[in-house]
Amino acid sequence: MKVVILGCGRVGATLATQLDKAGHHVAVIDNNHDAFQRLEPTFRGEKVMGNGVEHQVLKRAGIETADAFAAVTNGDNRNIMASQIAKEIFQVKKVVCRIYDPLRQNTYDEIGLETICPTVVGADMLFQALSIK
Amino acid sequence: MKVVILGCGRVGATLATQLDKAGHHVAVIDNNHDAFQRLEPTFRGEKVMGNGVEHQVLKRAGIETADAFAAVTNGDNRNIMASQIAKEIFQVKKVVCRIYDPLRQNTYDEIGLETICPTVVGADMLFQALSIK
Repeated sequence: MKVVILGCGRVGATLATQLDKAGHHVAVIDNNHDAFQRLEPTFRGEKVMGNGVEHQVLKRAGIETADAFAAVTNGDNRNIMASQIAKEIFQVKKVVCRIYDPLRQNTYDEIGLETICPTVVGADMLFQALSIK
Repeated sequence: MKVVILGCGRVGATLATQLDKAGHHVAVIDNNHDAFQRLEPTFRGEKVMGNGVEHQVLKRAGIETADAFAAVTNGDNRNIMASQIAKEIFQVKKVVCRIYDPLRQNTYDEIGLETICPTVVGADMLFQALSIK
C-alpha cells in the first residue's frame, strides 16, 4: 500500500515508521526540514519538504497513486483542508484526518470525513484510569 | 470521589466535565484564567488559578484530601513533576499523567508513574484506520 502522511510531528513520525516497518511505501510531507529527524534512521520512505495543502507538493509526494492519506499536522484547519483535497481532487480511497477540536470532529464526521480526535480519546482514557480504584 | 485536575486545556476540560457529570467532586487548576471558559456552564467544581507544581496551589485545590490527581497540561515536564508531588508528597492514591513523548513514557512507566501517551494511541488508531481497506 502507498501512503502519504502530512505532518512529521510525533504522531506523524511514529505512524510513518510503523507503516514503513509493516512494508508499506510511505511518503511524509512537512514544511520544516528538522521534523524529519523524528523518523528512525532505518526509514526507507520519502521525505517531501513543503506545504501539504499545495497540489504540487502533494503530487511530489505521490498523492496521485496513493492508496491512503493521513493528515496529522498540528493545525486542524490544515488537516481538514488537505484531507478534502486528497479525497475530492485526488480521489484517494482512504483518508484519515486528525482533529483536536471535538466540536469540529462531529461536524466533519457528519460530512463523511474520517477523523480521529485525540482529545476525546485522551479524556476517555484518563476517565477510565481514574475511575478504577 | 474527589479529583484534582491540573490543566484546563481541551483534554482537562473534557475530563473535568465528564467527572463532574458522573457526580465526582472536581477541582481544576490552570495558570491562565481564560482556560476555564472551556468548562461547560453547568460545571459545579472548583476553578483554581495558579501553577500546579506549587504546593500552596495544590493545597488550595484540595490535594490533601483528593482521591485522584490527573496532570494534563501541555508540558510533559510539568505533568511529571506535579504527578510526583501528588504521589510522593501528598500521597494521592491514584495519579495519572499525560506524556506526549513516547520515550519518556516508557521511563516513567518503569518507575511506577501511571502515564497515558496520546502520541502512541493516536498513531495506533491511525495505523488501524489506514490498514482497513
